[in-house]
Amino acid sequence: MDKKPTAAAAVTSADVARLAGVSRATVSFVLNNTQAHRVSDTTRSRVLAAAEQLGYVPHAAARSLRAGRSNLVLMPASVSAAGRLVSEWVDDLESELERHGYVLVLHAGRFPDPVSAARAWAELRPAAVVALEGDSLSGPAVDVLSRAGVRGVMAFASREVTGAHTVDFDQSRIGALAVEHLVAQGRRRIGVVMPRERGLATFARPRLAGAEGVAARSTATVTPVDLSYTHESAAELAGRWRELDLDGVFAYNDEYAALLLHALREEGVSVPEDVAVVGCDDLVLSALQQPPLTSVRLDLPTPAQFADALHELVDRGASPQVRGMEPVLVHRRSS
Amino acid sequence: MDKKPTAAAAVTSADVARLAGVSRATVSFVLNNTQAHRVSDTTRSRVLAAAEQLGYVPHAAARSLRAGRSNLVLMPASVSAAGRLVSEWVDDLESELERHGYVLVLHAGRFPDPVSAARAWAELRPAAVVALEGDSLSGPAVDVLSRAGVRGVMAFASREVTGAHTVDFDQSRIGALAVEHLVAQGRRRIGVVMPRERGLATFARPRLAGAEGVAARSTATVTPVDLSYTHESAAELAGRWRELDLDGVFAYNDEYAALLLHALREEGVSVPEDVAVVGCDDLVLSALQQPPLTSVRLDLPTPAQFADALHELVDRGASPQVRGMEPVLVHRRSS
Repeated sequence: MDKKPTAAAAVTSADVARLAGVSRATVSFVLNNTQAHRVSDTTRSRVLAAAEQLGYVPHAAARSLRAGRSNLVLMPASVSAAGRLVSEWVDDLESELERHGYVLVLHAGRFPDPVSAARAWAELRPAAVVALEGDSLSGPAVDVLSRAGVRGVMAFASREVTGAHTVDFDQSRIGALAVEHLVAQGRRRIGVVMPRERGLATFARPRLAGAEGVAARSTATVTPVDLSYTHESAAELAGRWRELDLDGVFAYNDEYAALLLHALREEGVSVPEDVAVVGCDDLVLSALQQPPLTSVRLDLPTPAQFADALHELVDRGASPQVRGMEPVLVHRRSS
Repeated sequence: MDKKPTAAAAVTSADVARLAGVSRATVSFVLNNTQAHRVSDTTRSRVLAAAEQLGYVPHAAARSLRAGRSNLVLMPASVSAAGRLVSEWVDDLESELERHGYVLVLHAGRFPDPVSAARAWAELRPAAVVALEGDSLSGPAVDVLSRAGVRGVMAFASREVTGAHTVDFDQSRIGALAVEHLVAQGRRRIGVVMPRERGLATFARPRLAGAEGVAARSTATVTPVDLSYTHESAAELAGRWRELDLDGVFAYNDEYAALLLHALREEGVSVPEDVAVVGCDDLVLSALQQPPLTSVRLDLPTPAQFADALHELVDRGASPQVRGMEPVLVHRRSS
């Protein structure tokens, strides 16, 4: 099935200039629609024909700087983080951004510090950056972005980031809400699932901290329990359940919760009698679990509201008002 | 929570040149590590200090062209398409590419034709393009990418794409395998779920075609049935099941299958007695459905193999051998 691609040398604007018999500057004026310079219609056609013939594509960066705009919205995120956490929201955001003429680009790079990350993102010259993990941003990082021409930074974060528009997204409130509910249900020995999968610790750690904060103000205790997203790991955890002696568990999200529900049932541990289980994300399938799963639903600003705010920020430098994330407990029979 | 960001003008290499008291060309030589030009250590330090002070970030495009390399691997995909179809695979691919020094970037833009798409991708000057939906590529589109300096194009596709390295990924074989299995189980009136969600038609249509191909060679019939990923839509479909009179269904994937399983049970339709159900993706939770769900597992080249092949292609222009996708039926009690 494999076939060696044509080894074509990269085409530059100099090649277009040579073929059209004009200066490189003229090529630039024509291809970037610069209004400040008059180019005759004949010359314009010659340049366009040459560019077409050579298959010349201007650089996004060069073009965005010259035209003063880019249509990229960069979201630093791995597929799994975006996917598991807020997949549908990001998906709808794509459509809403498209309505305003933007294209969403996910950047999966991982970096040793916020400024290195910002430098890498800045190289793509996006119009805006939307940071789902805004707590790993910093003022100096936002400054790098601004200096590179990024017109707006929206950060989902638990604290304000200097220079960025912060959308309140405090993961600790999710763990706190789940454990408040479990305590109100009379549970006192509460487990908090810590997924072993890559990229989830960023969300799991503050959720645990929120859980611990609530426990510290009550007579409940919180025990972190590691879990991989496999049958084996869930069976192993369920097998130790009586020894762990936990009567409530916040299972990170609905997928880990569903896996654990089944493993507990196999082990003869009754839900909610022996242990109350709470998930997060309120997935479509969670109401269909046996027993139906209590879950923390994350109310976010609608993708349409968010896209409108982002556009205001990029287009007019306005300071958009975007409400933060609101965790809401959806009580079902598992707790 | 919102705060207006500092309105910093974009910093250019001309600003760096002015502050360092050197020519723009010298700034370029220093920042791009061009070996062909000798620059004194003093000058080099002055340029680096000026760039640091101004927070200047070179363009990815400019840098990649000058240095002859970019570290971006661009994957045209929406979060939902990547997420639902091959989320874990893409996630692992991110890590494996990182091992070779590449960063995966997902580009969610949608375009009227393959060449427009290729032009937009080419503007980011990636080292390589990995097209999950390779059937929407074309030879001229690959040519646009090559001319823009993209060193390799890997396309998951059902047919060869001129100039690209095709990884066989024929969605029609998934539908064909599911329906072959249902026919072998004695089913004759077979439904094929067509998800209404955005972006899934690209995969659903060839799966339906594969199902129809098998039916045409047997006494079975295939009926497409629309389904949204909501309880309401599933309940509505289940409510019409006796009228539809279908004794087997390929439910697009395991999530739609799980939703339909529950709705059929609510409606008193027995699985597999009244209707056999087959999903796709063999998700971790699918073995835990009631009854456990038959599914088509998609064996792909491992992310490590794929990343190695991509690196060979980009780094040495080698013609990598990558095996295609192999659908495998995992038979459980739902069929």
